[in-house]
Amino acid sequence: MSIRLLKRLAELREAVRQARQAGQRIGLVPTMGALHAGHGILIDRARAESGFVIVTIFVNPIQFDRPSDFERYTRNLPADLAYCQQRGADAVFAPDAAEVYPHPPRVFVEAPGLSEHLCGANRPGHFRGVATVVAKLFQMAQPDAAYFGEKDAQQLAIIQAMVEDLNMPIAIVPVPTVRDPDGLAISSRNSRLTPQERSKAPLLYRALQSAANGLAAGAVPAQARQSALDMLSREPAIKVEYLEVVDARSMTPVDQIRGPVRIAAAIWLGETRLIDNIPT
Amino acid sequence: MSIRLLKRLAELREAVRQARQAGQRIGLVPTMGALHAGHGILIDRARAESGFVIVTIFVNPIQFDRPSDFERYTRNLPADLAYCQQRGADAVFAPDAAEVYPHPPRVFVEAPGLSEHLCGANRPGHFRGVATVVAKLFQMAQPDAAYFGEKDAQQLAIIQAMVEDLNMPIAIVPVPTVRDPDGLAISSRNSRLTPQERSKAPLLYRALQSAANGLAAGAVPAQARQSALDMLSREPAIKVEYLEVVDARSMTPVDQIRGPVRIAAAIWLGETRLIDNIPT
Repeated sequence: MSIRLLKRLAELREAVRQARQAGQRIGLVPTMGALHAGHGILIDRARAESGFVIVTIFVNPIQFDRPSDFERYTRNLPADLAYCQQRGADAVFAPDAAEVYPHPPRVFVEAPGLSEHLCGANRPGHFRGVATVVAKLFQMAQPDAAYFGEKDAQQLAIIQAMVEDLNMPIAIVPVPTVRDPDGLAISSRNSRLTPQERSKAPLLYRALQSAANGLAAGAVPAQARQSALDMLSREPAIKVEYLEVVDARSMTPVDQIRGPVRIAAAIWLGETRLIDNIPT
Repeated sequence: MSIRLLKRLAELREAVRQARQAGQRIGLVPTMGALHAGHGILIDRARAESGFVIVTIFVNPIQFDRPSDFERYTRNLPADLAYCQQRGADAVFAPDAAEVYPHPPRVFVEAPGLSEHLCGANRPGHFRGVATVVAKLFQMAQPDAAYFGEKDAQQLAIIQAMVEDLNMPIAIVPVPTVRDPDGLAISSRNSRLTPQERSKAPLLYRALQSAANGLAAGAVPAQARQSALDMLSREPAIKVEYLEVVDARSMTPVDQIRGPVRIAAAIWLGETRLIDNIPT
């Protein structure tokens, strides 16, 4: 059966209503398009657990702090649609901006504490935009479960907190990061790297692993962090935006290990910003 | 049949599930208790339009800017329960604070523009607390419709904006203010007035009416506002906190009439703060 492309909210609600009436579990995979294998395993997981799988493709203007970033974000709906069909999704919801924001937004969902560090520190309003659009998509589609990649660990933590704190009856399913054979986390941004930059990019994952090994061997977070920073500093093409050992739930840097942590970093390679993180 | 008292979220969800299964429309009346005739007509309206009517009674700690205000807020669950039964509600959801906030809240719903004026101007965080708890109650009960009094016009405007902007599939039903025969809007705070203060309180409504008459006769908002302020200033026991002609949707003061407006005011009579508003 051919995948269904839904452009209007009313079409989405009707598709969900029919799936519910047929007793199907609804699985939602929110994306901004430019789909790759990292999204693919989100769809696979949703497919395995749901009767009706919806992929949303929406480049959300309110989460970009710079308009130029929003403008140049990769958009290729025909390719994304073909990819979703191949991965077995039932429907793609790809609304226009006016369908999602018929007027300037007046109401926002915020997680101030969880947005303070890491990617939130340098991108004011970014996670407010993310939480708000995900809350909207959740209310639009009313899924039983929604699937998010661990690569965006801070986003995932904020969405988990939103669902818990606002009592949304939705299961948030975290899906591990997909990596190229050399360890680089798959991202739509990787295609912007020059061949030379691409050859240096796996150092990010190796630095995170080295910090994780340090922690496993008993180092305190400050030591583990410093060894990873030292490793990255030996490559002059890499500029570190942040590298932190954070509590896995609160996304706040820790100086002692008292529970599950993540080691998270953002680096720049030329004009391209890469993020990655690993659990311990 | 006796009304059901639900204390736990799981009980609420189960009651809603059963009502849905029976094909009933769910009507929600969120309150902080201390119920009076103003709440009564909310319940009546919900009763007329719903198969299953839930009144929530929860004094929400995060919407009070002063802890003392929260502590002294009137609580009388047995009386409220009897009142809900008499008005024909099916269930009362009256959770403990720990059921609603099992840990300090990390995620908030905000309507910054709509909270800037009127009651929001002097109560930082108040409407953030209101929007957040109402979002939670909506997710908990998943009602088809929810009923709010027009007396709290700014709260109503924020909740209408929340439901629209976050795409919540809930009908918000505004219910007109209930007044004593002398015009005073019914409020749980009225019981705090001394007999002398009570005799002066109806001046608030008369001042709002005088402003509305002025607008109807072609006065600009500044003139209408000033005539109402003059009227209130002749009573030394009354201190005006604000009195504004605002756009009915944005809750922002207007200097020209270009669409529906509300005239809204807050006054102090001794230790008691009274609010009221009327549409034009």
